[in-house]
Amino acid sequence: MTGRSGRVRSETARVAILQATARIFGSRCYDHLTIEGVAAEAGVGKQTIYRWWHSKGELVADALLEGLLLPEPLLPPDTGDLRADLTTWLRDVFGLLQRPGGDDLVRSLAAAAAENADVGRRIRDSLGATSELAARLRTGVEAGQLPPGVAIEDFGDVLVGAVVLRALARTETDEAAAERLVSVVLGGAAQT
Amino acid sequence: MTGRSGRVRSETARVAILQATARIFGSRCYDHLTIEGVAAEAGVGKQTIYRWWHSKGELVADALLEGLLLPEPLLPPDTGDLRADLTTWLRDVFGLLQRPGGDDLVRSLAAAAAENADVGRRIRDSLGATSELAARLRTGVEAGQLPPGVAIEDFGDVLVGAVVLRALARTETDEAAAERLVSVVLGGAAQT
Repeated sequence: MTGRSGRVRSETARVAILQATARIFGSRCYDHLTIEGVAAEAGVGKQTIYRWWHSKGELVADALLEGLLLPEPLLPPDTGDLRADLTTWLRDVFGLLQRPGGDDLVRSLAAAAAENADVGRRIRDSLGATSELAARLRTGVEAGQLPPGVAIEDFGDVLVGAVVLRALARTETDEAAAERLVSVVLGGAAQT
Repeated sequence: MTGRSGRVRSETARVAILQATARIFGSRCYDHLTIEGVAAEAGVGKQTIYRWWHSKGELVADALLEGLLLPEPLLPPDTGDLRADLTTWLRDVFGLLQRPGGDDLVRSLAAAAAENADVGRRIRDSLGATSELAARLRTGVEAGQLPPGVAIEDFGDVLVGAVVLRALARTETDEAAAERLVSVVLGGAAQT
């Protein structure tokens, strides 16, 4: 019984810590987010946080990956028009980067990925192969808008990669840029 | 005259600092590279380094961008076969990531870009629009292997972006991955 209630307590603390991270991230900037502040907000000791996370970058990355930092999930629509749907999705992503705090989000993710390969892998997976974007691309293949043999994972990586690069360079993340990138990525591949 | 000899002294110190960074980076790992160590190796005071660079990440990024960290520049060949040339280039880049120190290089660049938007922009520019890669893509347009209106800069960003994402995730950087990525990026665009 102790083992089980221990696990429940752990999970409660983990969720409280990530929610505290999201609240502090939302109300202050990344620079003012500290492990001490998160511990106080979550009502746990600093050591409890350090048991699971090595840095505030990892903490913010986890809060993002669990969907706690975004007002709504970024899902590509499915209107049947692959080009239009990918452009809408990319505009939403770029829009997020331009909101207050968007730059902080990118900085914290890049810092966390630099520190820890596992964070890098999880960022890629959650945006890439196992994502809603990949699901939308698969629908495109089924609808004959992408060639049957197209590597969905690679396709997702070139789109998400361009987003990461633009975010790191804080440049060309406007609506026209979203359209141009989708055109380049779809190239002659889209049959829409 | 003082102004001019001051500028010469500054440039001498700047180059000495970057070369010292490259030597230490080559012989030890990134974690053991310190501003103190670089200052000692370059024969300058720590304050001289902090006048131009805020962190060791920026220092390593600059050494890379000035070509001091690579044994040879990564130029895409021009055999006339765009698909083959891009694949060769991407294999070389991935090969670099797999060498000892390759992972450190990516970590330091990501950390530097996270700290400083200017570093992010310079990384993108040097790999992207103003790069040898962009020049090779332009030759592809002239040879009719890419559509005449293709946006070279966006094209470069999707390739380089995929590299950055794979590097951050430390995954799928083998030769087969290079071939698949080029196929996805060229899609129906390449007329080779």
